[in-house]
Amino acid sequence: MYSFRNDYSEGAHPKIIQALTDTNFQQTCGYGLDPLCQQAANTIRRLCQAPAADVHFLAGGTQTNLTAIASLLRPYEAVIAASTGHVNVHETGAIEATGHKVCAVPTPDGKLTPELAESAAGDRQEHMVYPRMVYVSDTTEVGTVYTKAELTALRQYCDRHGMLLYLDGARLGSALASPENDLTLPEIAALTDAFYIGGTKNGALFGEALVLASPDPHFRWHLKQRGAMLAKGRLLGLQFQALLEDGLYLELARHANEAAFRLRDGLAARKIPFLVDSPSNQQFPILPNTAVQRLQDLGYAFEIQQAMDPDHTCIRLVTSWATPDSAVEDFLRDLPACL
Amino acid sequence: MYSFRNDYSEGAHPKIIQALTDTNFQQTCGYGLDPLCQQAANTIRRLCQAPAADVHFLAGGTQTNLTAIASLLRPYEAVIAASTGHVNVHETGAIEATGHKVCAVPTPDGKLTPELAESAAGDRQEHMVYPRMVYVSDTTEVGTVYTKAELTALRQYCDRHGMLLYLDGARLGSALASPENDLTLPEIAALTDAFYIGGTKNGALFGEALVLASPDPHFRWHLKQRGAMLAKGRLLGLQFQALLEDGLYLELARHANEAAFRLRDGLAARKIPFLVDSPSNQQFPILPNTAVQRLQDLGYAFEIQQAMDPDHTCIRLVTSWATPDSAVEDFLRDLPACL
Amino acid sequence: MYSFRNDYSEGAHPKIIQALTDTNFQQTCGYGLDPLCQQAANTIRRLCQAPAADVHFLAGGTQTNLTAIASLLRPYEAVIAASTGHVNVHETGAIEATGHKVCAVPTPDGKLTPELAESAAGDRQEHMVYPRMVYVSDTTEVGTVYTKAELTALRQYCDRHGMLLYLDGARLGSALASPENDLTLPEIAALTDAFYIGGTKNGALFGEALVLASPDPHFRWHLKQRGAMLAKGRLLGLQFQALLEDGLYLELARHANEAAFRLRDGLAARKIPFLVDSPSNQQFPILPNTAVQRLQDLGYAFEIQQAMDPDHTCIRLVTSWATPDSAVEDFLRDLPACL
Amino acid sequence: MYSFRNDYSEGAHPKIIQALTDTNFQQTCGYGLDPLCQQAANTIRRLCQAPAADVHFLAGGTQTNLTAIASLLRPYEAVIAASTGHVNVHETGAIEATGHKVCAVPTPDGKLTPELAESAAGDRQEHMVYPRMVYVSDTTEVGTVYTKAELTALRQYCDRHGMLLYLDGARLGSALASPENDLTLPEIAALTDAFYIGGTKNGALFGEALVLASPDPHFRWHLKQRGAMLAKGRLLGLQFQALLEDGLYLELARHANEAAFRLRDGLAARKIPFLVDSPSNQQFPILPNTAVQRLQDLGYAFEIQQAMDPDHTCIRLVTSWATPDSAVEDFLRDLPACL
Repeated sequence: MYSFRNDYSEGAHPKIIQALTDTNFQQTCGYGLDPLCQQAANTIRRLCQAPAADVHFLAGGTQTNLTAIASLLRPYEAVIAASTGHVNVHETGAIEATGHKVCAVPTPDGKLTPELAESAAGDRQEHMVYPRMVYVSDTTEVGTVYTKAELTALRQYCDRHGMLLYLDGARLGSALASPENDLTLPEIAALTDAFYIGGTKNGALFGEALVLASPDPHFRWHLKQRGAMLAKGRLLGLQFQALLEDGLYLELARHANEAAFRLRDGLAARKIPFLVDSPSNQQFPILPNTAVQRLQDLGYAFEIQQAMDPDHTCIRLVTSWATPDSAVEDFLRDLPACL
Repeated sequence: MYSFRNDYSEGAHPKIIQALTDTNFQQTCGYGLDPLCQQAANTIRRLCQAPAADVHFLAGGTQTNLTAIASLLRPYEAVIAASTGHVNVHETGAIEATGHKVCAVPTPDGKLTPELAESAAGDRQEHMVYPRMVYVSDTTEVGTVYTKAELTALRQYCDRHGMLLYLDGARLGSALASPENDLTLPEIAALTDAFYIGGTKNGALFGEALVLASPDPHFRWHLKQRGAMLAKGRLLGLQFQALLEDGLYLELARHANEAAFRLRDGLAARKIPFLVDSPSNQQFPILPNTAVQRLQDLGYAFEIQQAMDPDHTCIRLVTSWATPDSAVEDFLRDLPACL
Repeated sequence: MYSFRNDYSEGAHPKIIQALTDTNFQQTCGYGLDPLCQQAANTIRRLCQAPAADVHFLAGGTQTNLTAIASLLRPYEAVIAASTGHVNVHETGAIEATGHKVCAVPTPDGKLTPELAESAAGDRQEHMVYPRMVYVSDTTEVGTVYTKAELTALRQYCDRHGMLLYLDGARLGSALASPENDLTLPEIAALTDAFYIGGTKNGALFGEALVLASPDPHFRWHLKQRGAMLAKGRLLGLQFQALLEDGLYLELARHANEAAFRLRDGLAARKIPFLVDSPSNQQFPILPNTAVQRLQDLGYAFEIQQAMDPDHTCIRLVTSWATPDSAVEDFLRDLPACL
Repeated sequence: MYSFRNDYSEGAHPKIIQALTDTNFQQTCGYGLDPLCQQAANTIRRLCQAPAADVHFLAGGTQTNLTAIASLLRPYEAVIAASTGHVNVHETGAIEATGHKVCAVPTPDGKLTPELAESAAGDRQEHMVYPRMVYVSDTTEVGTVYTKAELTALRQYCDRHGMLLYLDGARLGSALASPENDLTLPEIAALTDAFYIGGTKNGALFGEALVLASPDPHFRWHLKQRGAMLAKGRLLGLQFQALLEDGLYLELARHANEAAFRLRDGLAARKIPFLVDSPSNQQFPILPNTAVQRLQDLGYAFEIQQAMDPDHTCIRLVTSWATPDSAVEDFLRDLPACL
């Protein structure tokens, strides 16, 4: 049976494997200074309409978050995040290990607003950390997406307080491909100080493309110091070029979202409630414990999100670029007997 | 008019100034290895009935917290604290600057319970920080004190989970002298893995005495590395000896508490409500904004704790070993006209 | 013309590309807990005759060094390294960024001895860092290799002082395949507390296999915190399995070494001196500046190691698993005219 | 017998004890924002002819070095120091604990030159730390002092490379009072980006006054985060005011130096050689081991600097503001019989 555990259960889209094979015996210089990275960086600058942006390629999300955030903050500065934010809960204190506090604030739906952010900002005096950055993820960790109005409001909030806006795009593909999304890449690039385009969760073997609005001439020192500079950096460049040069990235995300929506609709048709209304490739249905067990007994794999009450559990179903239609059909066919 | 801003507005108890004068031309070796520190450490071990404990003297509370906590945790380990806890809000990210996350949990009264602590502990799996320490302060930052039953429950919780219990005793004198306290120094020493006896806020020029239940043969390396090893360490030893050798420490705390209780009772007689029922030297009355302004106009100084509603503000009144009876009397005399 | 700049100029050995293709649509769990990683870890334990060893796969050398060293040392502890050691000069302070000092000592040939190590160890008192680890690389950064007697002497030195021995095996293949080597993998595993088998510089796309003699049940927390846990960890497992299951790893290293020796012998035949007598895949000839320029004009690429005098420069020629015989022949054919 | 172990064996100059007593019951606000600190800061700005400089008071030298350096460097930046420099050897890795490498360079006399500094600077490329600061101490750890020409040369070197010049003035009094000194406080303030005026080793109970050429509006955040903000900061202010308002600081240093010169001359008259020609309050005579033992047997205390050969040892004799003439006379009287 299929695993809906996450969107990185398989390898990579075949176009990437092909690109890897095609370039295998090219000699290039190391550490991301090669033509493949330069080409991909140019593609990203073009897609973002951000000709002055700095683009760096890293292997994973936690690595990207910790390297970017540590490079942007001074020692006493902190980052504000939703308490569900990846940097707050699922990076084993990676941000704190670089010396910075994450000021977490509970949210109804994984999304920050200026009001929520300000409630975690403290007094801006010397006995407290100085809140200098707002961290958002899009999609969020519970599958919700930011609208243009929401991201713009956060940008204005940041501007009022001299703060930076950072967007974790581990699942940016799914966000951009969501029916609730009204943001474009150029708008995201213009509204944030830094963000990354996630590859790992949308068809790459691995890789995240970090886009810095203002070039930092020493960012590569940060990369190296944090162990985030890949010797054969070309591997990152070729993947992003393959994903982005002709729209494959969005196409894969759309595939993932549509599979998720079919799961969602099938569950909803059975009156299954959801933790949150998610317009993206993560769905959080609340099932009777017995149903969870029966699905697992059938061999379906997924994460347990949280217990809701003694009899019900919220699970997380994640679809991806690689989820076959048949996997969704199988699940929906097997569901009724499990309820 | 008197300042009720904090309990470190004056210098030191005259006995300490005298001890400083008396020993001024003694030559001793540096860095806390001198006879004055050894004598004070022995006094503390005796008072704690903890002959095997390690005692170190540091200049201030944040320094003590960061040095102790960083020495006790491995890099991926975190400390659980009340969200009002000093390490969480008022140390400018000092703990995070040593690489450790503070997992904060809101509390009704500044005190942690096993249940509250566990709610911030996370899943104890590798994508999350590992909760390895519970941090409590006694008195808490809102003036409350732990009972023996409460501290024992936290000890048992820590034992069940292989966790350390650390007690920030910046205002331990006020706690021990509180009518709601039923803990003794030996009990605190037995129930915690580490705690400190605060001097700065109870009559010393400066200084905190850190008591480690299990000697760490390399703790002095930590002290030095964090800039917490005073060259003339003897200054710390002589102060704690003066405070502790014959009960002055508790006597000063009792004086501070009693002054606070007179303020409290005078306010309560005027039907002034309080943020929390505090049995120690910090009182948190909620006053009409007009009253706050009038008291300030008369020259009284105090901290603003928080706005309660558009018309009312909670202020913090702190008394100390040095608060003269007349300051309390003046305040209570001037109060009615300000309301 | 061929680039002798380093041993990671090409992609990966075709067997690895094949394994990637073959496993591409297998669903596995993430973060290195998959069957491919388990299989590779078992292979490594078997080859090392170390059934109790802990094996972890990371993407790169700096990442491996910083994660391993930070996990093994307490905050005040330091690592002793040759001043040419990778952790000392070529990791942008990655070790210091985790809080630890690297105590560097100049060496004649990139290799540490007990005497050299002890000369950097300091007084072992609290005002100095505590030397707790010896770091060696094999091959070293100047191509030399450790003998069994030399590594054993360092082990004994470490044992005398309660120190850990860590071996950076970024080029361990080249070391094991060197005619001057008399160490086996089981001996290296037995003599060190931790070491890694480098994949990036010997035919993998990327990847290092860290072998810890004593299992640390929380090492995965360290991995995650440092951004070193790859989501699709399977990519690391499959590469090491491909390299190690049937001897490909040593075969590739032998190929690299032999190419280097042909370069060396051809240069020596022209009376070209060398910085150091290197029995591995890095060669350091000292050429007239004019020759360096002419070789570059012909299109050969290599690193400049250092200026020797106003007229001579030491360059670094690196061969690899991918260096074709023709590249060596071309170089040696073009050399005389450049001298 | 007298201890020549260091210059912080006694308490404080009586004028300081008096100031402490006189101000003891003044109420002031905390954390260095009080009138006593402001007065002392103004005195320092006046003496340095640096009206725009930022002055902060800290309790000790390691604390001052780590706080200042960590506030001035970005994560990948490093500080160049003489290998004898305090930050390199005697601070238990305090600088590295804030994430920064100390690039150490051996010197003949504890003093850096532009050439020596540049030899430790590396290639200024992204695989190496970026050398951004030069650290000097005056007097140095072996008692030597910088001339105006030497410090100016370092300033020019720093300007050429966009680097900061930091001067550790733990023993600045002894330097300024040295016959070999030709620098004034205003010149030191103008030539450095930051330096501190050491109190601990020149008559204060404790305290260092850090002078920052360019105000950093957030420096107090750094202070708090590193545990370096004293609650009763007034204690630091009053000490520096007492030392600096009317020349006591230099007077005490002159006394210490003169005592050292009498020791030096008495030793030299006996043909005792010295490790280095020191024009300040630390002297490094090389004595037969038997003489060292006999002096210790008589009760004289001093540090062992280093073994010179199997029969001779270099010791360190330190004099201070508190060294009585009789202690010097006793030593010189007892010396001949020990040789």
